[in-house]
Amino acid sequence: MTEHYLDNSATTQVLREAADKAVFLMRSRFGNPSSLHGMGIEAKFELDDARQTVASSLGAGRSEIFFTSGGTEGNNLALFGAAYAKKRLGNKIVTTAAEHPSVLNTVKQLEKDGFSVTYIKPEKNGNIEPQALLDAIDENTILVSIMHVNNETGAVFPVKSAADAIRIKKSPALLHTDMVQSYGKLSLTPKKLGADIATVSGHKVHAPKGVGALYMRKGVRLSPRVFGGSQEMPVRPGTESLPLIGAFAEATRHICGDHEAAARIMELNRYLRAELLKMPDTAIHSPDDAVPYVLGFSTGLVKAQTMLNFLSERGVYVSSGSACGKGKQSHVLESMGISKQQKDSALRVSFSHFSKKEDVDALLTGLCEGLTVLSHA
Amino acid sequence: MTEHYLDNSATTQVLREAADKAVFLMRSRFGNPSSLHGMGIEAKFELDDARQTVASSLGAGRSEIFFTSGGTEGNNLALFGAAYAKKRLGNKIVTTAAEHPSVLNTVKQLEKDGFSVTYIKPEKNGNIEPQALLDAIDENTILVSIMHVNNETGAVFPVKSAADAIRIKKSPALLHTDMVQSYGKLSLTPKKLGADIATVSGHKVHAPKGVGALYMRKGVRLSPRVFGGSQEMPVRPGTESLPLIGAFAEATRHICGDHEAAARIMELNRYLRAELLKMPDTAIHSPDDAVPYVLGFSTGLVKAQTMLNFLSERGVYVSSGSACGKGKQSHVLESMGISKQQKDSALRVSFSHFSKKEDVDALLTGLCEGLTVLSHA
Repeated sequence: MTEHYLDNSATTQVLREAADKAVFLMRSRFGNPSSLHGMGIEAKFELDDARQTVASSLGAGRSEIFFTSGGTEGNNLALFGAAYAKKRLGNKIVTTAAEHPSVLNTVKQLEKDGFSVTYIKPEKNGNIEPQALLDAIDENTILVSIMHVNNETGAVFPVKSAADAIRIKKSPALLHTDMVQSYGKLSLTPKKLGADIATVSGHKVHAPKGVGALYMRKGVRLSPRVFGGSQEMPVRPGTESLPLIGAFAEATRHICGDHEAAARIMELNRYLRAELLKMPDTAIHSPDDAVPYVLGFSTGLVKAQTMLNFLSERGVYVSSGSACGKGKQSHVLESMGISKQQKDSALRVSFSHFSKKEDVDALLTGLCEGLTVLSHA
Repeated sequence: MTEHYLDNSATTQVLREAADKAVFLMRSRFGNPSSLHGMGIEAKFELDDARQTVASSLGAGRSEIFFTSGGTEGNNLALFGAAYAKKRLGNKIVTTAAEHPSVLNTVKQLEKDGFSVTYIKPEKNGNIEPQALLDAIDENTILVSIMHVNNETGAVFPVKSAADAIRIKKSPALLHTDMVQSYGKLSLTPKKLGADIATVSGHKVHAPKGVGALYMRKGVRLSPRVFGGSQEMPVRPGTESLPLIGAFAEATRHICGDHEAAARIMELNRYLRAELLKMPDTAIHSPDDAVPYVLGFSTGLVKAQTMLNFLSERGVYVSSGSACGKGKQSHVLESMGISKQQKDSALRVSFSHFSKKEDVDALLTGLCEGLTVLSHA
C-alpha cells in the first residue's frame, strides 16, 4: 500500500541527512561539550556550529539561540521566565484563545499564580484582529504571547501588530511568539516580527522529535525556571542533546528558505481547496491568507475520527485537530465559534516541502469514497 | 593516535544498536505517538515497548516510568513536584552537600521559595553516615533527596537508610534518589532502595544525550511543573522524543544487568588503584567500597587542567571533577574537607562496560610522563 502522509503539522519524517548527522554525533563525536579534553572540545565545536546554523535560519545572532527539548519546554521557559522577570512592572498577560496547549495551560497556571490574563478570540475566519491586540495591551501588560501561525487552521496571527501595540501603549511587555508552525514555512524572523522571544521546534521541519530552540533577543533576561549546571546559560541547564541539535541544524539547512518548495505547496493548497469546495457539505476553516501548509476543513457529514480511520486504512494520514489534543474537541475551532456539526467532522491536512499531488489525489479519492460509504451508514 | 576514553561518567559513546534503532524511528516510524491514525498507532506501539523495556531495567511497572529529556529535567521535576505536592505537611527538605548541581541548585531555589534545607556533608572518605540521615529527618521533613552513587567519587550513598529513617521518624517525606550514576552499574532498583521517585539518564548508559526517565512509585503524586498537552501525563508534556526513547531502551537491553562486564571493571579498578598508589604523592578520594566505575584521585603535584591537557594530547581522556562543573572547583571534594593541594590536582577516571586494560595502561603511562615533565616545569 502506498502511504500518503498528510499530517506534517503533527510531526515530519526526519531527513536522511539529518539522521546521518545524528548518527555521526552519537558514534564519532560523542564527547560531552562541557568536557575540557579534546573530545569535549570537538563536541563543543559541533554544538557551536549547529547554533550558528540555527541562528542564521532565524536571522539571529549565535548568542541569541538556546537549545531546548522542543516546543513545549520552550514555551514554558519563555512564559514563566518572562512573567516572573517582569512581575514588578505589572500584572497582566495578553494571549489568544487559539494558542497551543503548552502556551494556554502555562498561562492558566500563571493565572493561578496571580497574574491576570486576557485571551483574545479569533474571528470566525480564524484570524486575530490587530485592533483587539491594541485594545487589550496596556501599560500594566508585562507579557504578550501570540503564535505566528495557528496549528489547526494555518492562520497567520498579527505578531507585528502586537509589537506595534506594545510600543504605542508604552507597555513594558515582553513579546513572545510561538513560531513552531511558521518556522521553515514563512521567512519572517523574530526580529522582523518585533518579538523579544520566540519558540521553534525541530520535528516540524524534518529534524527528530526532542529538540527545539528558544530565540531570546540580546538583552532580554528571563527568570530561570530550570536549575542545574551551566549549559545553555542561564535558560536551560542539562547536557546538550548534541545528536539531536546537530540533526536539527542539518534539517534547517535543507528546509529553511526553500522558496521553490513553498511555491509548489501553494499550488497544492489551491488545488485541494478547489476540489474540496466541489463536495456538497464541505466547509473550509482556514482563512484565505493562511499559510498553504495547513488546511482545516469539515466534511459536515462524517465524524472526524470515523473518516480519519477510513482514510488511515487506505494509507492516507490526516488529523482531526492537533496531535497534542489526542482527539479531544478542538479549542481552536471552539474559539472561532464554529457549528457543532462542523466541529464534529473537522479534519486537518498539513503539508511538508515533500508533499506531492499524488498525496492530495489519494486524499480526495478517499474522502469521496468515505463520504459515500460512511454518510449513508 | 589510539584514543582511550576514560570519562564515561561525563557521557558515553552511543551503542551501534541504539543508534540504529534511533535511525529506524526517525525514518520509518516517524509518526507522532499522539496521532490517531495508523502511523501514530505504530509510533505509540514503539513508545509502549520502550517504556516496558526501561521499566523492566528498573524493576518497575510500565505506568511508573515517565520519559524526560535527561537527568537535569528529571531532578527538577522530581524536586519541585514533590516539595510542592507535600507543602501542606511540612517545610523541611533533607539532601546531601555532594549532590549533582541539578539537585543542589534546585534545592537552593526551593530554599529561596521558603523551604528549609539540611545539607548532609559526606565524611572525609566520601561516604554519608546513615546516622546523619536519622538525625536530620523528622516529622516536618517532606522531601529527602539523596543520590545513589556520587558522580565524582563513585561513593555509594545509603538510600535505603534514608528510607528507614523516614519510616522510623514517622516522616511524611517522599524519598527521591538521583540514580544517574548507578543506573546500569548497580542492580539495585528504586523499589529495593525504598525510593518513591528516581531519576535516570540515557547518555550514561550508551544511549544518546537528551533522554532520561523518571521513576514514580505507583500512587505518588507530584505537583506539575511543566504545562502543555497530555503526553507523559501528568509529569512531562511535549511530543515524546521517540527516536531517543527507543535508542535508550535498546541501550538498556545491552547494558543493564551485564554482570560479566561489571566483574571485569572491578578488576580494572583494583589494578588502577594499586598502580596509582605506587606513585609518590597520589591520594585516592573514592571510598574502598565505591562503585568500580568511578575513581577519583589527586596526583598532588600537577594542576588538574594541566595534567588533563597533557593526557588529552596523548589521546587519553579523563576529567577534573564533573563535566557539568566545566573546570570549576569541585563542591564534592570541598564538602569532603580535602586539602587545597589535592583539590587542585584532582582527576576523575570513569569506566564503562567497554573499558579495557589497554586504556588504563595508556593512562598510567601518560600520568608517569606527565608527573616527570610537568612537576619539574
